[in-house]
Amino acid sequence: MTSPVLVEVLRGGTVESRHTGALAIVDAAGAVHTALGDIDRPVFPRSAVKLLQALPLVAGGAADAFGLDDAELALACASHSGEPAHVATAAGLLARLGLTADALECGTQWPGREPVLRAMAARGEAVTPLHNNCSGKHAGFVCVACLMARAAGAEPAAFARGYVAAAHPVMREVSAALSLATGVDVERAPRGTDGCSIPTFALPLRALALAFARAGTGQGLPDAHARAARRLRRAVAAAPFMVAGSDRFDTRVATAFGERLFCKIGAEGMYCAALPELGLGVALKIDDGAARAAEAAMATVAQALLRSGHEVLRAASHAVLRNWRGTEVGALRPAFTLG
Amino acid sequence: MTSPVLVEVLRGGTVESRHTGALAIVDAAGAVHTALGDIDRPVFPRSAVKLLQALPLVAGGAADAFGLDDAELALACASHSGEPAHVATAAGLLARLGLTADALECGTQWPGREPVLRAMAARGEAVTPLHNNCSGKHAGFVCVACLMARAAGAEPAAFARGYVAAAHPVMREVSAALSLATGVDVERAPRGTDGCSIPTFALPLRALALAFARAGTGQGLPDAHARAARRLRRAVAAAPFMVAGSDRFDTRVATAFGERLFCKIGAEGMYCAALPELGLGVALKIDDGAARAAEAAMATVAQALLRSGHEVLRAASHAVLRNWRGTEVGALRPAFTLG
Repeated sequence: MTSPVLVEVLRGGTVESRHTGALAIVDAAGAVHTALGDIDRPVFPRSAVKLLQALPLVAGGAADAFGLDDAELALACASHSGEPAHVATAAGLLARLGLTADALECGTQWPGREPVLRAMAARGEAVTPLHNNCSGKHAGFVCVACLMARAAGAEPAAFARGYVAAAHPVMREVSAALSLATGVDVERAPRGTDGCSIPTFALPLRALALAFARAGTGQGLPDAHARAARRLRRAVAAAPFMVAGSDRFDTRVATAFGERLFCKIGAEGMYCAALPELGLGVALKIDDGAARAAEAAMATVAQALLRSGHEVLRAASHAVLRNWRGTEVGALRPAFTLG
Repeated sequence: MTSPVLVEVLRGGTVESRHTGALAIVDAAGAVHTALGDIDRPVFPRSAVKLLQALPLVAGGAADAFGLDDAELALACASHSGEPAHVATAAGLLARLGLTADALECGTQWPGREPVLRAMAARGEAVTPLHNNCSGKHAGFVCVACLMARAAGAEPAAFARGYVAAAHPVMREVSAALSLATGVDVERAPRGTDGCSIPTFALPLRALALAFARAGTGQGLPDAHARAARRLRRAVAAAPFMVAGSDRFDTRVATAFGERLFCKIGAEGMYCAALPELGLGVALKIDDGAARAAEAAMATVAQALLRSGHEVLRAASHAVLRNWRGTEVGALRPAFTLG
C-alpha cells in the first residue's frame, strides 16, 4: 500500500520536499478511528514507546521503593536534551541507589541541540551517559534492577550489569509490558538494536495506537499497569521540562495540555500519543524518518482531535522555516485532514 | 509520476525507513543516459549548483584581478563546515579586497558538525558570517562586485551592498550563468530564497544534469564559462578540503578522484555531479530532503558510472549506522541500479 503525503515543505510558494507516512488512531477496544497508509506494516517505535517501557518501573514497585518523584518519573519517559536539569535529575536518582553514571549502558551522547551543546562545550563539561537523551529511561531500568537485586539478595550493580540485553530480567519485564499493551508478542516481532542499545521491536502502527489508547484510559491493561500509566502521564504533566527540554514540542504540549494530551517522539519519524478524554491512541511513522514531519503530523492530529487552535499546535503543524539571516523562507504544511 | 525508492535504511535485517527520489544522468548534448522518476519536475538545486554560481567570478575576470588561488576558488564552490581553515581562507580573501566579514550577507551560522561546533565553543570563539557554510561563495560574489565597482568608479563596499538581491548586478550575472548552463531562463522559473539569502530557482533535474555535463566538458558553454568551469573543477581537485571539510563526502571524493569526479551536495536532498571523462552530468533530488540518502544515491551513481570499487564510494553508498555505544545497528542500502 502506498503511503499518502502527510507533510509538505514549502520554499516561497513552491513545494520543495514532501514526506509520506502512515497514521493510526485507535480506541482502547481496538476500533479504528483513522487509518492513513498501511497501519499493519511493522515499524520500529523507537523512543515513542518510552512510557510503555517505564510501566514496570512503577507497576513493579521500584518507583515507590526508591521514592521517585514526578521529575524522575517524567525523565524515565523522556528523550531529553541533555540540559543541566536533566543531567542532575538522572544523577540524583542514581546517587540514591548508591550508583553513578557508570551503571548506565546507554552510551555517551553529546546533546543534539546546538545551544545546549555550545553551552556545555563552553563550560568545558565532559560528556557522560547522563547526557544521553535516554539516561532517564536507563536510570529507571537500573531502579528496576536494584529492586530485583534486593529481592534476590544480590549486589545491585552486579545484578544490573547487562540490563540492555533482551534476556536480562529487567528487559524481559520491559518486553512483557510492551506485549501486554500492544497485544503483540514482541518476542516474535522483527528485532533491532536501538540507539541506546536496548532491543526495539517492529510492531504495526495499529497495535502501537491501541497501546496508547490503553495507556490513556487504563482499559485493557492489567490494573497495576493501568495505574502505572496514569502515574507516569501525571508525572509528565507535572514536570513537562523533563520529558524533552527547552523549545521542544513534547515539553510544550505537556505544559499546555497537561494530562489531556501525552505525546512522545521517537527516532526515524515516529510519534505516539494518548488522548485520555477521547479514549484514543495515536501512532504515526514518517516513511523517510524525518522528525520535522512527524512533529508537524502529530500537531495536526492533535489540533483535529482536540478541536484546538492552541498556538503550540499551530506553530508545529505549520512550522516556519527561516534562513541564517532570520528571513522567513518557507514553512511546513500538513497535506492531510482527519474526517 | 511516482518516485522510486532510491535508498533504504536498515535496522537489524528490517527496513526501517525509505527515501524516494528522482535522478537524471544526461550528456552535454542533452541525451538522457538515465532517468529515474520525474526528471522534468522543477526542484530547487540549492547549494548543489555553487560551481555554476561561481562561473562569473572566473569568467568575468575578478578571480584574476584579485589573484584568487586554488583554495579560494574551491571555497567559492563550497558548502564548508566552518572549520578554522575555511574561516581563515574566506577572511584572507576579504582582507585582500580591503573588506571584512561585515561585507558578507549570508548571515551567521554555527557549524553544523558537532565536533567542529564543540571545538569552536570550547575556544570561546564567536560566530561570524565567515563560519557560514556559504561564506566562500559569498566572498566570491563580493569579488565580482569589487571588480564591477572598479569599472564603474564606485566605492567597493557601497557597490557590493545588497548583492544577494535578484536585481543586483552581481546576482544578475549569477542568474545569467545559471540560465546559460541549464538552458532554462531562470528568471521565469519558480523562485525561493536560499539559506544564505540569495535567490534559488526551481529547475528540472534534466536541465541541472545537462548543466553539469556542460560544466564537465565545456561543450555547449560560452568559451569563457567553459574555461571557468575547468579552472574551478581543477581548484576543487587541488584543494579538496575547502569544498566541504573533515569527514565530508565531497572532500573525500575530490581527494580520491581529483578532476575525474566533481560532486556537490545541496540542501534538501540535492546532489549534482560532473564526470568529464564520460561526458556526463548527474542531478538527483531525494523527495523528502534527506542528505543521508542523497549522498548514498550519489555514491551509488558514481560507483556505477566510474565502475569503481573505491572505498570512499562504497562506504557512502552503504553507510553503516552505529548507536551511542558504537555498536553497528544498521546501514543504508541503495535500492536502484543503473542499467
